[in-house]
Amino acid sequence: GFRDFLPELMRVRSFVLRTLRAVFESFGFEPLETPSLEYSTTLLGKYGAEADKLVYTLQDRGKRDVGLIYDLTVPIARVLATSQNEIKLPFKRYQIQRVWRAEKPQKGRYREILQCDVDTFGVASPLADAEIIAVIYTALKKLGFEKFTINVNSRKTLFNLLKSGGLEIKEKQLSILRTIDKQDKKSKEAIEEELRNKGLEKDAAALVLETIKKATPDAELEQVIDLAEHLGVGPEYIKFAPTLVRGLDYYTGPIFETVLEEPKIGSITGGGRYDNLIEQLGGPDTPAVGTSFGLDRICDAITELGLLKERKKPTTQVLVTIWPEEKRRLKSATTKTVGGGNSALQCALSLTNRLRAQNIDCEMYLNPSAKLDKQLKYADRKGIPFVVIAGPEEIKAGKLTLKNMATGEQEQLTPEELVDKLK
Amino acid sequence: GFRDFLPELMRVRSFVLRTLRAVFESFGFEPLETPSLEYSTTLLGKYGAEADKLVYTLQDRGKRDVGLIYDLTVPIARVLATSQNEIKLPFKRYQIQRVWRAEKPQKGRYREILQCDVDTFGVASPLADAEIIAVIYTALKKLGFEKFTINVNSRKTLFNLLKSGGLEIKEKQLSILRTIDKQDKKSKEAIEEELRNKGLEKDAAALVLETIKKATPDAELEQVIDLAEHLGVGPEYIKFAPTLVRGLDYYTGPIFETVLEEPKIGSITGGGRYDNLIEQLGGPDTPAVGTSFGLDRICDAITELGLLKERKKPTTQVLVTIWPEEKRRLKSATTKTVGGGNSALQCALSLTNRLRAQNIDCEMYLNPSAKLDKQLKYADRKGIPFVVIAGPEEIKAGKLTLKNMATGEQEQLTPEELVDKLK
Repeated sequence: GFRDFLPELMRVRSFVLRTLRAVFESFGFEPLETPSLEYSTTLLGKYGAEADKLVYTLQDRGKRDVGLIYDLTVPIARVLATSQNEIKLPFKRYQIQRVWRAEKPQKGRYREILQCDVDTFGVASPLADAEIIAVIYTALKKLGFEKFTINVNSRKTLFNLLKSGGLEIKEKQLSILRTIDKQDKKSKEAIEEELRNKGLEKDAAALVLETIKKATPDAELEQVIDLAEHLGVGPEYIKFAPTLVRGLDYYTGPIFETVLEEPKIGSITGGGRYDNLIEQLGGPDTPAVGTSFGLDRICDAITELGLLKERKKPTTQVLVTIWPEEKRRLKSATTKTVGGGNSALQCALSLTNRLRAQNIDCEMYLNPSAKLDKQLKYADRKGIPFVVIAGPEEIKAGKLTLKNMATGEQEQLTPEELVDKLK
Repeated sequence: GFRDFLPELMRVRSFVLRTLRAVFESFGFEPLETPSLEYSTTLLGKYGAEADKLVYTLQDRGKRDVGLIYDLTVPIARVLATSQNEIKLPFKRYQIQRVWRAEKPQKGRYREILQCDVDTFGVASPLADAEIIAVIYTALKKLGFEKFTINVNSRKTLFNLLKSGGLEIKEKQLSILRTIDKQDKKSKEAIEEELRNKGLEKDAAALVLETIKKATPDAELEQVIDLAEHLGVGPEYIKFAPTLVRGLDYYTGPIFETVLEEPKIGSITGGGRYDNLIEQLGGPDTPAVGTSFGLDRICDAITELGLLKERKKPTTQVLVTIWPEEKRRLKSATTKTVGGGNSALQCALSLTNRLRAQNIDCEMYLNPSAKLDKQLKYADRKGIPFVVIAGPEEIKAGKLTLKNMATGEQEQLTPEELVDKLK
């Protein structure tokens, strides 16, 4: 459930973050961050009973009950509830942070995930919902995904169906919805049984499931879909999904979730409208709609599908090697001159400075007693395209050898020619 | 101790991160990330008794004792200790993550801080230490700081002094050093008393403090300073500081810390050599040296000194407004046509698409019933430079009004002219 991200994985992560940030900002969303810890009273009671159990809680030094954030929606709603003077509406923000969930680890499910959220506050119009769908579509396309479906439904339709079936109490409705949300993971029989355990009669349980399957989008949801298409979202990418529920309690209106055709790793985005949450946290009545991007799953999928075109690692352009000198000179570290009078080292240092002064990203090998072969292997492993070698002969001739690591070609150049060549 | 970062603060944070990443990568450091939680056994016993008390600990679902990471040094040492097959030495990485410390909140001291670390593994040569100092110097200069001092000392000198004073036991030495580290915060008398409480006689306590003040750099440290200067660090920026101790136990050799002349907010970087830590965590004997940048304090200082030159917020280039239509047409959301036949909305949607297709970052106002004045105020508040207005007259003439928000100038353009103008 917890992972290290070594440079190879970080390359994918950086590409995804860079792409998402650029898309979010191109739509006018502004960056914002909140603490990783919130009071337990803020976090609990917003997601539903089952998700609440997955919140990591602890006591801080002052014996206050706090928890690691479970998502970015409740924290931003807390900000909106308490920072009314600093934030003018409408307000569009994006937020990229780690969140924690004490889940049973399994494929595509981690205990620490990096989430990227975009949300719009203070807009009741379906235009805001449609824009969120357009952001999802644009971002996934920019990341290189071709085959995905943005499933949409509305909590209002679901609540109305349950109400017309005689379920009037909100808490009861939410409890039933949490069970229906498990349809992908559990058998029809298991779902029906869970519904009966929650007080539905046998026939009622089956009927609820049947009725939901046959539901049609309400006028508001139709408008959201229509507007999203007018904002450039390909109609084949949006699908009305009457059985889509989303697990969390706080949604009040349209809900959306994106699934990939391949690989099958669950949803990669999830979101919707949550018009009551800010008020619930003590703030003013503020309409809100947004989505999360699950960065870990997105990175997994990009790796699996081979979507990352940039093969090249971020690296310096050139490695300045140090010609290995005899031991006795290297060991004499007691004199104040550089490297104890190691002229190869002095040469490498001054060349490194010279290249950096010309804004050429260069790395100097750091162990003056390593064999040249080892230094070349280091450049190869890191994918550094060029290596500079300055042996006794080169120094005598006032030249340097530049080696192209891809082709193996070597040429002797003056320091000036070297700078020109690398620029 | 915990803070929200609204867009205005995020602007500084993004600038600092962008700058640091670019400098780190230009020196050949590669990105890496680790989990925010580690087993308590990994975290505790590396920093020293007092820092250990500041680690946030909790039990996970499996009743395992875990803690929120206190720094990025112990986590990366754990990675090096356990991922020997995946990581070839020498290895240079940078890491930017949040860490947590249950400190008493005060100016410049937060409970959740964003740390940026650069470290080099597998290099015993003082070249690695010197390069870390060069990274600090380059990064701070690039951030715009002019007046700072990189204080350097060596733990070896300190240990030798204590040893020659009769303190042979390492744990005792470390305990004494932790007291001496508080010299900036406590009076001489308080320090001497604390030293006496730790078993030093009255005269010995005073003598230790006097002797340390008069110490001179050892040969290794002289070489580090000399090499750093050869790597381009201005000599006036490095200062030998015999009383510099650094609070954490794991340092074994050269130590460095940067302070600003103004504002007085404590150190903004801190680091050094820690050659034993990876072995202590069960890995092979691996030399290691690096530094942390305290991003929160750096951002505070940049704000206080007004160093951020980029006044302009990151924003879209143009706001597409929606001409407010009569109420009755807006309310008719039951038809399938966009906005219930709202032609102003249709016009805004198609223009937004057109601009985005030309890669012009544009934002569409999201509430079709808002007054135009409110829409213009929104653009002004977000610093969006241009606004497009399409009223009934413009539509009739097949033109659009482009308003320059800075000058107030307006001009009527065809959609084609508008695109050309904005590109």
